[in-house]
Amino acid sequence: MKQLLLLIDRIISRVNVNLREFDFDVEPFINASTNLAKLHNFYASYAVTSKHPLKLQFSNSNIAGSYFLGKCLVNRSIVYKSDVRGDELKRKGEIIYCSKELPLVEDEVITIRDSFLFRTLIHSKSHNLETPEEFFIRNTVACHFSNIHGSTMEGCYLGVFATVDQMSLHSCIVGDFSYVQAEELFHRAIKPGTVWIANDNFSFQYTYHVDVLRKYVDLDASYRPVGLLIDFVESRKTDFERLFEQLNMEVLDIPQSSTVNRFALLKGTTRIGKNVLICQRAYLENAEMGVGSNAQENTYIIDSKLSGYDVTAHGAKIIHSSLGKKVFVAFNCFLNGKATARIKIGQNCIIMPHTIIDATEPITIPESHLVWGFIGSQEDLRNNSISLDDLEKSSELSLGNMVFNGDGQAFVNAFKARFEHILELNGAYYSKSKNRGHAQTDQSASFNMIQPYRTGPNRGIYPTITIEP
Amino acid sequence: MKQLLLLIDRIISRVNVNLREFDFDVEPFINASTNLAKLHNFYASYAVTSKHPLKLQFSNSNIAGSYFLGKCLVNRSIVYKSDVRGDELKRKGEIIYCSKELPLVEDEVITIRDSFLFRTLIHSKSHNLETPEEFFIRNTVACHFSNIHGSTMEGCYLGVFATVDQMSLHSCIVGDFSYVQAEELFHRAIKPGTVWIANDNFSFQYTYHVDVLRKYVDLDASYRPVGLLIDFVESRKTDFERLFEQLNMEVLDIPQSSTVNRFALLKGTTRIGKNVLICQRAYLENAEMGVGSNAQENTYIIDSKLSGYDVTAHGAKIIHSSLGKKVFVAFNCFLNGKATARIKIGQNCIIMPHTIIDATEPITIPESHLVWGFIGSQEDLRNNSISLDDLEKSSELSLGNMVFNGDGQAFVNAFKARFEHILELNGAYYSKSKNRGHAQTDQSASFNMIQPYRTGPNRGIYPTITIEP
Repeated sequence: MKQLLLLIDRIISRVNVNLREFDFDVEPFINASTNLAKLHNFYASYAVTSKHPLKLQFSNSNIAGSYFLGKCLVNRSIVYKSDVRGDELKRKGEIIYCSKELPLVEDEVITIRDSFLFRTLIHSKSHNLETPEEFFIRNTVACHFSNIHGSTMEGCYLGVFATVDQMSLHSCIVGDFSYVQAEELFHRAIKPGTVWIANDNFSFQYTYHVDVLRKYVDLDASYRPVGLLIDFVESRKTDFERLFEQLNMEVLDIPQSSTVNRFALLKGTTRIGKNVLICQRAYLENAEMGVGSNAQENTYIIDSKLSGYDVTAHGAKIIHSSLGKKVFVAFNCFLNGKATARIKIGQNCIIMPHTIIDATEPITIPESHLVWGFIGSQEDLRNNSISLDDLEKSSELSLGNMVFNGDGQAFVNAFKARFEHILELNGAYYSKSKNRGHAQTDQSASFNMIQPYRTGPNRGIYPTITIEP
Repeated sequence: MKQLLLLIDRIISRVNVNLREFDFDVEPFINASTNLAKLHNFYASYAVTSKHPLKLQFSNSNIAGSYFLGKCLVNRSIVYKSDVRGDELKRKGEIIYCSKELPLVEDEVITIRDSFLFRTLIHSKSHNLETPEEFFIRNTVACHFSNIHGSTMEGCYLGVFATVDQMSLHSCIVGDFSYVQAEELFHRAIKPGTVWIANDNFSFQYTYHVDVLRKYVDLDASYRPVGLLIDFVESRKTDFERLFEQLNMEVLDIPQSSTVNRFALLKGTTRIGKNVLICQRAYLENAEMGVGSNAQENTYIIDSKLSGYDVTAHGAKIIHSSLGKKVFVAFNCFLNGKATARIKIGQNCIIMPHTIIDATEPITIPESHLVWGFIGSQEDLRNNSISLDDLEKSSELSLGNMVFNGDGQAFVNAFKARFEHILELNGAYYSKSKNRGHAQTDQSASFNMIQPYRTGPNRGIYPTITIEP
């Protein structure tokens, strides 16, 4: 156990040094959220398939409850109940462009060093052009349900439900429930509840009112995460436990072209269409998943219908809702419909990352709209949505707490392209052995369990383990 | 799958080359016993503790259903449902003696290469003085329930229920149900049903009558193992399955100084005394395990009482029997008492390896006796047992099918010393934190699961995995 305590101390001091200009201390957060018994007792798992390049190494670390796929090295870190999905990493020989061609000399690897990640999702490939072979996370603390998506970082603190997307960050603080996609950031502190997308062509910014945000995501006086989003997730936690108690799950009756991960939970009357991908830690209850739809990590789809080719991005929650075809529900959205106040979303809509729709009455969103921010009623849509047609024609726009500048057409195109890319990668368009994606290639995964030392000075530390083809 | 078939082919041809002088072909045996579906689907496991040195590497191999502890490298091999217990390997700096001191420059490692092992037990440290750091098994086929105990080998075939003990073998065939402890053997074929112990000081030899042997252990015309011993084991196989279906077993109510391995099976009213060690794949049903007793790998103790400090060596079966204190039931013994024909064994008895007592009437063995061979009735003891006192005084002895030559005193002393050494290593004498052994140190093991590729050309091959402290 001594080694585990030393490890936690070292991570705290390294991250604090990186954030010293903000006078920021990660220690109280880590102390409030660290449960040594769980670090000692939970097993970790990794998936092996014939389709994904494989290279895993865990050393001087605790990885309790975490799940790994693809290429990942973890050293001097604690990766707790996190999902590290290296199934979209760049490969050796692949070429990226930045004025000139940059071919990769090795397969890309996720490296996690001197970091403490709580229930974090790491996915996709790094968008940092400077180190294309290394998707690094160093000297970083990431809090519950944060998403590290295609983003390298060093010396950072990501708050609860924070998302960083396709960028790189150096010595930054990203506040609770903030979403940032801003290419490269140095020594910045992003306020909680900020949704910010910025590049050379456009910028989109929305900020949650502090009182609204506090209701959904906050830290209490003891630095413990609280709020309705935490309550929602915590109240469904025990349902997951049986998934981790059994080695072989019952075989589900699903189409051959679809995948339900062994660590996903299906309850009630849930129907899985063709070409559907259900990732680990997804929670489906009375969900109708139309053809080509997906439920990514940490998503909840309850009493809802997805008509087809709908994307439920990492951490999104869809309750008492009906989605038309090709709806993009982005990271960490909370679509909280009620039996008496359903949410109906028309086809081709884009629900921006970190949108909260907490319906107190039935809400209907017309097709081909962009939706963002906090919405409690139909009336709220006025300041929190716009038709894609109108947005495409805009170059400056201010609606409620949202400000948009730049090329509206480029903005809409970027989202549409990304949406289609996700569907392709997930195998939504698979047919007659063509357009194969995760829904088809992840079926054949075998899952392996690893556990830490149970006694002695290394109690809670995992042995050094290297897995290669 | 292609790679797995190539691997099997390569092993067959390598072993056959080593055994070409005997015109021996391992192929029909391997074909009859290989079930590709099981090689594809079974997981393997390894144990990690803070007490045992750790170094495991699996490469280009299938290790379905096997269990590993300690230091072991497996390369280009199939190790099927086998137990590889590296918990008594020699350590760096340890000194072995052979006219002069030979200090070990590294920890001893079990290496398995170009071999196919079926349900084999590998245990203890190698007694080969020439390569003290390497316990090697090369170009070898070992059949169901064979024991490789402290013995290095290359180019060998071990028959069903064969045991090789504390020796080294080169290009040898050891027949079904034969037990050999003969220091070093080159290019020898040992007939089935031979129990042979030989060194500079003494030799002991017993040979089963071929008709008796066939009843218990044989290969049928299709090279499949048959006979009462196989029937006995096969009929209890399904009981084990639940152990491999669940991740966390119920916590058993046993003394703190005892260990029941997570892959051992306890049925009926079974009582575990203090300082008791129950190893993986042990099967206990209505068993009373007195203080300091043990049940090693592949043992069965059914409707029986072990009074205390009794050793049940690898593969031994004790049914409807009562043992006094300090009884040594050696490798693969089959003490087949019946409800109406119990076997009663007095204290301090030594039941020689590969003894079969198939009781048709109650049988009582007086204390301090050596027992061997086939015994069906009380009368049979006349030619199959001797008091240790009488044996100590003997230098030449011929009884039934048994011939002894040499120093009787040395023979008895060697067995007694070995027996005490086993009790010590197993922690039978543990008290007040002293005399710690496996019963105390194996409690804190954590178990990790690994599985092969499920699809593609490598289907059935395990990824290369390296585990270090």
